[in-house]
Amino acid sequence: MRLKCTISYDGHLFNGYQVQPGKRTVQDELEKALAVLHKSKDRIPVVSSGRTDSGVHAAGQVIHFDTPLSIPAERWPYALNALLPDDIAVKQAEIADDGFHARFSAVKKEYRYFVYTEKHPDVFKRHYAYHFSYRLNVQDMREAAKHLIGTHDFTSFCAAKTEVQDKVRTIYELDWTETADGLQMRITGSGFLYNMVRIIAGTLLDAGIGKISPDEVKSMLEAKDREAAGRTAPGHGLYLWNVYYDN
Amino acid sequence: MRLKCTISYDGHLFNGYQVQPGKRTVQDELEKALAVLHKSKDRIPVVSSGRTDSGVHAAGQVIHFDTPLSIPAERWPYALNALLPDDIAVKQAEIADDGFHARFSAVKKEYRYFVYTEKHPDVFKRHYAYHFSYRLNVQDMREAAKHLIGTHDFTSFCAAKTEVQDKVRTIYELDWTETADGLQMRITGSGFLYNMVRIIAGTLLDAGIGKISPDEVKSMLEAKDREAAGRTAPGHGLYLWNVYYDN
Repeated sequence: MRLKCTISYDGHLFNGYQVQPGKRTVQDELEKALAVLHKSKDRIPVVSSGRTDSGVHAAGQVIHFDTPLSIPAERWPYALNALLPDDIAVKQAEIADDGFHARFSAVKKEYRYFVYTEKHPDVFKRHYAYHFSYRLNVQDMREAAKHLIGTHDFTSFCAAKTEVQDKVRTIYELDWTETADGLQMRITGSGFLYNMVRIIAGTLLDAGIGKISPDEVKSMLEAKDREAAGRTAPGHGLYLWNVYYDN
Repeated sequence: MRLKCTISYDGHLFNGYQVQPGKRTVQDELEKALAVLHKSKDRIPVVSSGRTDSGVHAAGQVIHFDTPLSIPAERWPYALNALLPDDIAVKQAEIADDGFHARFSAVKKEYRYFVYTEKHPDVFKRHYAYHFSYRLNVQDMREAAKHLIGTHDFTSFCAAKTEVQDKVRTIYELDWTETADGLQMRITGSGFLYNMVRIIAGTLLDAGIGKISPDEVKSMLEAKDREAAGRTAPGHGLYLWNVYYDN
């Protein structure tokens, strides 16, 4: 039986999602908990919709794994949450057909990036939002964002150290909304390159403080050169929010 | 010069506010940062409006200390925040007259207690709100709360291990409001006994799940016996929110 689960994790104390020798990762904790549940010496392999970086959070990451256990789907979150550390939680589980694949069946992903602009640091947000205490021109940020919507070669918005050759992706939606204490960037796309969302967030924040004009983002895109785009915003403001599948 | 500061701290990694040998405390970190700022071998004593327990947070704790330094008041938060660990932040500072005392000048304190009732744990709230996934009758909780408003002997709502003899306090306001994902208790009073707010929160949650009737709170109060009241809700849902002074 194949199970599809929606999970959330606080990325603060993880070295990212993917298993890395000697490092604490989300995948490692999931596979350990599943091995206990299956009374198995061997790992139960878990597939996710994709990796997230060190410090990056997930409110709606999706995984799948195969299991011989006949636990009812709605009981799986309770069974796993009892074994998982408290910075990972299974929010929902459903039986998927065998053809389902957490990564290759995904048709769209949604990320959100949180910024707060208060004068002084907020201790309760220090791991969960980027403290950017500048006056921001949100209109300019929205203007700048428009240049990135659509299908483009996002080489300028991809970390240099990547093996991926084809850097064409499609961004469906990219907007900034004001929250009680700052801003939230919401972005959906066909898929995302390494650090792409964080570079976009950093670049649009540069537009917000007038370091670049909104239209410069267009030439940044066309340059196809990482050096052309702005800074990489820190990981702790970023959340994999949702992964969408064709039902 | 006496300085009055409003500070916040995330109680999760502290053994409470007050200095304790060999333990990490808020007061210890404050006094260390001040000693560095004053280039002093000795501690600069800090006085707070009162102690908070291990795991308990503060959004608006108030402290005072005396200093010969002539740093403008609005610069003190920046100077201290640069030296403090990131789970303590100075939010505001002002020069107080010499007669001001963070504890004895306080006329009213406000605490808030956060509960969330979602089915599964929320990793982002695990240190910041009490996960109480039961259906709650908020109306009963409000009815029960009414019995505690006013001036009473709160022995039943005070931890047994306390040296305080006089347990008469006045509660000015006590109400529950619904939040996006649970409930928030807001309580203001003349002062609070050891664990008093957490015992009140636990007892009113008992009323919310029908374990006690709202009117039983009245007899609990009259019993003047800790055993008569309900459970002590966990510390991580509790925040010292505000301390009020006669200006």
